[in-house]
Amino acid sequence: MDSKRLEAFSDGVLAIIITIMVLELKVPHEPTIAALVALWPVFLSYVLSFLYVGIYWNNHHHMLAVTREVNGGILWANLHLLFWLSLLPFSTGWMGENLFARGPTVLYGLNLLACALAYYLLERRIIANQGEQGKLAGAVGRDLKGKLSPLFYIVGIALAWLWLPMAGMAFFVLMALVWLVPDRRIERTIG
Amino acid sequence: MDSKRLEAFSDGVLAIIITIMVLELKVPHEPTIAALVALWPVFLSYVLSFLYVGIYWNNHHHMLAVTREVNGGILWANLHLLFWLSLLPFSTGWMGENLFARGPTVLYGLNLLACALAYYLLERRIIANQGEQGKLAGAVGRDLKGKLSPLFYIVGIALAWLWLPMAGMAFFVLMALVWLVPDRRIERTIG
Amino acid sequence: MDSKRLEAFSDGVLAIIITIMVLELKVPHEPTIAALVALWPVFLSYVLSFLYVGIYWNNHHHMLAVTREVNGGILWANLHLLFWLSLLPFSTGWMGENLFARGPTVLYGLNLLACALAYYLLERRIIANQGEQGKLAGAVGRDLKGKLSPLFYIVGIALAWLWLPMAGMAFFVLMALVWLVPDRRIERTIG
Amino acid sequence: MDSKRLEAFSDGVLAIIITIMVLELKVPHEPTIAALVALWPVFLSYVLSFLYVGIYWNNHHHMLAVTREVNGGILWANLHLLFWLSLLPFSTGWMGENLFARGPTVLYGLNLLACALAYYLLERRIIANQGEQGKLAGAVGRDLKGKLSPLFYIVGIALAWLWLPMAGMAFFVLMALVWLVPDRRIERTIG
Repeated sequence: MDSKRLEAFSDGVLAIIITIMVLELKVPHEPTIAALVALWPVFLSYVLSFLYVGIYWNNHHHMLAVTREVNGGILWANLHLLFWLSLLPFSTGWMGENLFARGPTVLYGLNLLACALAYYLLERRIIANQGEQGKLAGAVGRDLKGKLSPLFYIVGIALAWLWLPMAGMAFFVLMALVWLVPDRRIERTIG
Repeated sequence: MDSKRLEAFSDGVLAIIITIMVLELKVPHEPTIAALVALWPVFLSYVLSFLYVGIYWNNHHHMLAVTREVNGGILWANLHLLFWLSLLPFSTGWMGENLFARGPTVLYGLNLLACALAYYLLERRIIANQGEQGKLAGAVGRDLKGKLSPLFYIVGIALAWLWLPMAGMAFFVLMALVWLVPDRRIERTIG
Repeated sequence: MDSKRLEAFSDGVLAIIITIMVLELKVPHEPTIAALVALWPVFLSYVLSFLYVGIYWNNHHHMLAVTREVNGGILWANLHLLFWLSLLPFSTGWMGENLFARGPTVLYGLNLLACALAYYLLERRIIANQGEQGKLAGAVGRDLKGKLSPLFYIVGIALAWLWLPMAGMAFFVLMALVWLVPDRRIERTIG
Repeated sequence: MDSKRLEAFSDGVLAIIITIMVLELKVPHEPTIAALVALWPVFLSYVLSFLYVGIYWNNHHHMLAVTREVNGGILWANLHLLFWLSLLPFSTGWMGENLFARGPTVLYGLNLLACALAYYLLERRIIANQGEQGKLAGAVGRDLKGKLSPLFYIVGIALAWLWLPMAGMAFFVLMALVWLVPDRRIERTIG
C-alpha cells in the first residue's frame, strides 16, 4: 500500500481544519471599528492555530516524503493525529471567546500536547515499519525537538493553570516559533 | 474509466464529513470546566463517528486499491454510500445533544445500518464488474464480516428501541472495534 | 496546461458543496420523532440536490476524461459552473425551510437552469478548443439532452410560478432521473 | 521536494474558502421575494470574492505550473498567502451585512491588499529559488501588473475611507476585471 492516498486524505482534512477555524471569527453586526477590535482575542487565537496547523502540515509533508509504504497501523496513527488536530477549531474558539481565561488556555495546551504526542506516535509507527536503518529514522536522528516539545507544552499548561494563563500562552507561541523552522534534517536526507 | 478521480472525490467528501462533525461541538460561552464537562455526550458521539468515518475511509481505501476500473454503476453506488455517510454529522449531533435518548440513538443505528448496506452494495457492484475471479472477490472471500454487520446493527437498533438506548450503543461501539482491524484479507492480496 | 489540477479543484469544490448542504439539516433540540418528521421538506430537498451535484460531478468527470488540455477560457467557464453550483446549498435550504413555497421553488429552478446553461457553456468552450473533430464533440454528438434540459427547467419554473410549485418540482425530479443515466456516449468513446 | 503536494493542499484550502463564503448568504426564514432581495449586498460581495478567489486560484495554478521545486521558505510564503485568503469569507461577510459601510469596505480593501502583497512575496520566493534566469522570472518579466495592483488597492482604500465607500468598491471591481485576464505571459512560456 503506498502513501499517496494517505497524503491526499490528510491534506484534505488539514485544509478543512485550517479553513473552518475562521468560522469562529463571527461577523459582527455593527460596521464599527470597535466591533472589529473586540475580536482581537479570537483573531490572535486564529493566527496561532493557523500557524500550528501549518506547522503540522509542513512536517507531515516532510515525514511522508520519506515514507513510501504504509500499513494499517500507520493509517490509524495518522487518523489519531488528525483527530486531535480536528479539535483545534473548538479549543481555539473557546480560548478566543473567553479572552485567554485559565480553563480554555489549559485546554488549548492539552490539545497541543495531544497533537504533539500523536505526531510522535505516528513517527514511531513509520520508523517501526521502515526499520531503524530506514530513511525516516536516519532523518530524524534522536529527534530532540520531537521529544522535548511535549515537555514544553506540559510546562506551559502548568504555568497557565497554576500561575498566569498568559505565561502558558507565551510557551505555546514560543513552541510555534521553534517549529516554524522546517525539519532541515529530513530536507537534507531527501535533497 | 479509472478509479483515481473516484478516490479523490471520495477522499474529499470523507475528509469534509469527518471535519464538519466537529462543528456540532459548539463552543461554550463560559470559560468554566462545568461548561466543558456538559459537552461529554456530544464529544463521545463525535469520537465514535470519527472512528466510523475513519473505518469507512480505511476500508474504502483498501477496496479501491484492488479496483482499477469503474463504470457508471460503481460511481453511483459510491455516491450512494457517501450520501448515507454525509448524514452522520446530523445523526451524531442529534444523539449527542439529547444525551443518547431513545429516538436519536435508534436513528444513529439506522444511519450506521444504511452505511453498511451501501458499502456492501458498492462492494458487490465492483465484484460484478471485475467478475467473481477478480481481485476484490478473491480478497473479500465470503465476506462474513460484511454480511454479519448489518445484522449486528439491527440487533443494536432493536435493543435501543425496545430496551435500553445504552445497550444499543454498546453494540455500535463493539462493531466499530471489530472493524478497526483493517481488512487484512485485501492487504494480503495487494501485498 | 493540462486538466489534472482543474479536475482536482473542481472535485474539491463539488465535494464541499455536496457536504455542506447537510448543514441546512439543523439538528433539532428535542429527541422526539415529531421533531425529526418536521424536517422532511429539508431532507427531501437535500436528497434532490445531492442527486444533482452527484450528476454534475459524474458528467463533469466524463467530460474531462476526454479533455487533456485546458486554456484560460475553459478555466473560467469551469469556475462559472462552480459558482452556480455553489449557490445550491442556499437555494436548497430556502426551499426546504419553506415547504416548497412558490418563490423558493422558482429560485431553485432558476439555480438549476443557471447550472445547466453554465455546463453547456463549458462543454462548448472545450469543444471550441479541441475543434469540432475533437474527442468531446464526437462523444456528445448533437447533445440533445444538453440542449433540451434548459427548456425543461424553464417549463418547470413556469409551472411552479403560474400554477403549482409541486408541478415544477415534478419536472426538476424528472430531469434528475433523466440525467442519472451517465453519458454513455462519452463512455463509449473512452472505452 | 516537488510542488505536487503544495498544489493539492492549496487547491483544498482555496476550494473550501470559495465554498464556505456562501454560508454567509443566510437562508431567509420567509419565502418572500422581499426577503431574497434584501440579500443583494451579501450576494454581490459573494460574487466579487468568488471572482477574487477564482483569480488567485487561476494565477496560482499558472505560477506553480512553472515551479517544479519548492523549499521551506516557499511553503511558508504559500501558507502566508492562504492565511490572508482565508480571511476573505469574514471580511466579505462583514461588508455584505453592512451594506458596504465605510469601515467594512476599508477592511475588505486591506484584505485584498494583504493578499496581493502575499502573492507577490510568494512569487519572489519562487524566483529567488529558481534564479533570475528561471522559468517564472522569464514568464512574469517585470511584472507590472503585480507591482501596480497594491497601489490600486491603496487608492481604493483611501477613496473608501476619505470619500465614498462605493468609489473604493469601484476600484476593487476594476482590479478584479484587470486580473480576470489570466497571465498570458506564463501561458506563453509553458505553451
